[in-house]
Amino acid sequence: MDHPSPFAGALRRPLPVALADILRSRFGDRFSVAQAVRDHHGRDESPFPVTPPDAVVFAHSTEEVVEIVRACRAHGVPIIPFGVGSSLEGHLLALHGGVTIDLSQMNRVLAIHAEDLSVTVQAGVTRKQLNDELKSTGLFFPIDPGADASLGGMTATRASGTNAVRYGTMKENVLGLTVVTPDGKVVRTASRARKSSAGYDLTRLFVGSEGTLGVVTEVSVRVYPVPEAMSAAVVNFATLDDAVRAVIQTIQLGVPVARCEFLCEHTIRAINAHSHTTLRESPTLFFEFHGTEAGVREQAETVQEIMREHGGEDFEWATRPEDRTRLWNARHNAYFACLQTRAGGRAISTDTCVPISRLADSISGARAILDKASFPSMLLGHVGDGNFHALLLIDPNDPVEVEEAERMNDQIVRLALSMDGTCTGEHGVGLHKMGFLVEEAGDDAIELMRRIKHAIDPDNIMNPGKIFAF
Amino acid sequence: MDHPSPFAGALRRPLPVALADILRSRFGDRFSVAQAVRDHHGRDESPFPVTPPDAVVFAHSTEEVVEIVRACRAHGVPIIPFGVGSSLEGHLLALHGGVTIDLSQMNRVLAIHAEDLSVTVQAGVTRKQLNDELKSTGLFFPIDPGADASLGGMTATRASGTNAVRYGTMKENVLGLTVVTPDGKVVRTASRARKSSAGYDLTRLFVGSEGTLGVVTEVSVRVYPVPEAMSAAVVNFATLDDAVRAVIQTIQLGVPVARCEFLCEHTIRAINAHSHTTLRESPTLFFEFHGTEAGVREQAETVQEIMREHGGEDFEWATRPEDRTRLWNARHNAYFACLQTRAGGRAISTDTCVPISRLADSISGARAILDKASFPSMLLGHVGDGNFHALLLIDPNDPVEVEEAERMNDQIVRLALSMDGTCTGEHGVGLHKMGFLVEEAGDDAIELMRRIKHAIDPDNIMNPGKIFAF
Repeated sequence: MDHPSPFAGALRRPLPVALADILRSRFGDRFSVAQAVRDHHGRDESPFPVTPPDAVVFAHSTEEVVEIVRACRAHGVPIIPFGVGSSLEGHLLALHGGVTIDLSQMNRVLAIHAEDLSVTVQAGVTRKQLNDELKSTGLFFPIDPGADASLGGMTATRASGTNAVRYGTMKENVLGLTVVTPDGKVVRTASRARKSSAGYDLTRLFVGSEGTLGVVTEVSVRVYPVPEAMSAAVVNFATLDDAVRAVIQTIQLGVPVARCEFLCEHTIRAINAHSHTTLRESPTLFFEFHGTEAGVREQAETVQEIMREHGGEDFEWATRPEDRTRLWNARHNAYFACLQTRAGGRAISTDTCVPISRLADSISGARAILDKASFPSMLLGHVGDGNFHALLLIDPNDPVEVEEAERMNDQIVRLALSMDGTCTGEHGVGLHKMGFLVEEAGDDAIELMRRIKHAIDPDNIMNPGKIFAF
Repeated sequence: MDHPSPFAGALRRPLPVALADILRSRFGDRFSVAQAVRDHHGRDESPFPVTPPDAVVFAHSTEEVVEIVRACRAHGVPIIPFGVGSSLEGHLLALHGGVTIDLSQMNRVLAIHAEDLSVTVQAGVTRKQLNDELKSTGLFFPIDPGADASLGGMTATRASGTNAVRYGTMKENVLGLTVVTPDGKVVRTASRARKSSAGYDLTRLFVGSEGTLGVVTEVSVRVYPVPEAMSAAVVNFATLDDAVRAVIQTIQLGVPVARCEFLCEHTIRAINAHSHTTLRESPTLFFEFHGTEAGVREQAETVQEIMREHGGEDFEWATRPEDRTRLWNARHNAYFACLQTRAGGRAISTDTCVPISRLADSISGARAILDKASFPSMLLGHVGDGNFHALLLIDPNDPVEVEEAERMNDQIVRLALSMDGTCTGEHGVGLHKMGFLVEEAGDDAIELMRRIKHAIDPDNIMNPGKIFAF
């Protein structure tokens, strides 16, 4: 099955002058139609061509977002919420033109409820900023997708990352949201209670909705006491399969590892070049353990034993904070490190997630597919969750490579779907996975999603053309 | 603000003869209009009067549920899904008549994916049955609302219970559902992957929807390796306040306790009478610790220290399985133990949940309100989550007591709402908390919920009259 281009049938009409006048007079310099500003907001980290909105407004408050939404709605003009632009599936591209609401200046931490292990932030606060502001409290926010994404954006894509195996994803960690609905109402989706059975789970409806149901302006999330002890470890394997089987056993035994990352030998090579590390260039696992001193020691011993049984070699420790930081920085820069191995290249990233029992087959299947590729590729990911990424490093200007990459991407995704997995573990659907979502969820599930969208955004003004056809 | 009776405006019309004929000819003995069967399905554990459906069908498969839903829909007849009848807020009462689909005979464990730490069951499987069937695998299902509820029912009410402080609620533990929609389609809400960003979170939409959006027929949930070590402890306090403050500190320090239950002196007295235990009749905490041998020891020592600092006395251990079982059986029977202290009495149970920093004020506020009551009352609950129940033991035939109880219930709920808490932590809205839901969520949030309901169930045939007015 071939998927139609998400760009097909996109309809752009010029921004109504009356709307531009209203927004300009209300927001002054914070309203922009400058090409550079529009271009900056017309792309994300995906390899799609720049597709700019007609205008950008930099909002400072929920009330301002209400004003913008009401004005756009009155003119039937699309709205795209924008955080820092780190999404990977074309979520932010203005397929049908319209107004992008840039929330990056809504970057205040509104409340730190240290006693309740929760915080409330404006949607533009990034995860690193939040952790900086939490430093004096002994608390931290664990969700870590690599990029220094905004919490609004992470909410929109149901992001997760390296800590999810222990702390869960945004789904588990968002306590409540403030949302501006398409008709310009302000809805708070939940109280501050840790759990609730009070009606439909509006919070979870907006987590992962990719800006298609409203604009998230405030996010309340769980935070956690910084563990008494943390240590990290690196372990090498002769084969990808050994490494993955070692992970599977770790998870099945219920060892509460905080992080468990796989990196293939090509990824390690790219990291060594980029981060000036001297990691052995073989299939590798990075671990992190959180807990009490004794608990961390015990976890580490258990994991070391499991690794040894699966042929893990050179188990190496990083207990000093600076060594751990260097290790995880190297991991976080892996995406850019890989990109830099090919000048002018861009990456198509798969994001499949499968039941852990199928992880070895899923990864080695992807490797077999990519072994035939004419372009470089890397495998890495959050294997503790069954989630990994294949990076397909292509020349975006070479249609043959693009076509080849899309074909292999299809094969990798369909392999995961055949294992009862998902086409996207944490990146979201955006433009790129709309066809796969239909294959994965089925027509009747898509019909339910579409009915919800119609019910909440009947005029289809909220990030139109994303997730599914209206 | 007074809430109108949920029974006001209820409209019953006789079951269409044509529908009865269709269901009888298709389901034979499994279709019943016998008064005893209807009455059994017209009540739950709430103190509401029996409100029977017009007929009951005992379904054996998803396909049969499809047939029943299609037939009912064709005749515009309401449908109420029924598990074991253990809900507490009138969820199962046939306010507008109609057909109850009893799912208790859909009680097969369909798949145990031990390697993936997940299972798939039919909706009628109860939590005890599931744990019995898991025994040989070394896995267990932790969600434990006390009653031996069905997993379909637990899904519908977003249930939790004593283990939620460590393992989360049904929200966190349901991986995916099979649902029959109001138009008789079968939707599988998710793949078997541990995490996914593939479109709207249909799973979470149905978790907590109380049968108003469709019939859940299959449930996939997470299961966990049985911990290497478990121990339980009981500790007594001179005052309620001391006990609660000890809990608050335990949670704030991030000690990963598996269970943390509060029981007031009246509850303990009822338990001693019912379960022939000799617990000291003072405000009491029950704890359970899960982990490795060393981890459990360490947690227990930390908690013991915290308890001591808050005046905890007689810290008593239950490490032998039979002692732990006796303790938790006593806890689980607390509701019935309390009921039995008053012959012919029924309990109105509050279910507020507040941010943990407000827990002490919330519980002592409830105690102050109930101290003025003319009927007996008990306080107990899952205080590690900020969730507790006040049991108001009334004579359901005494309108003065009923009125007094409802008034005090109102006061306790409003106190929680004033603390940014929720009117229901785990029981759901049902009939009883519809007014409070509006107060808690606000009109605009209710409007969103209502739009979703209209979009998915436009004819309002799925458990009509529950959660909110259509």
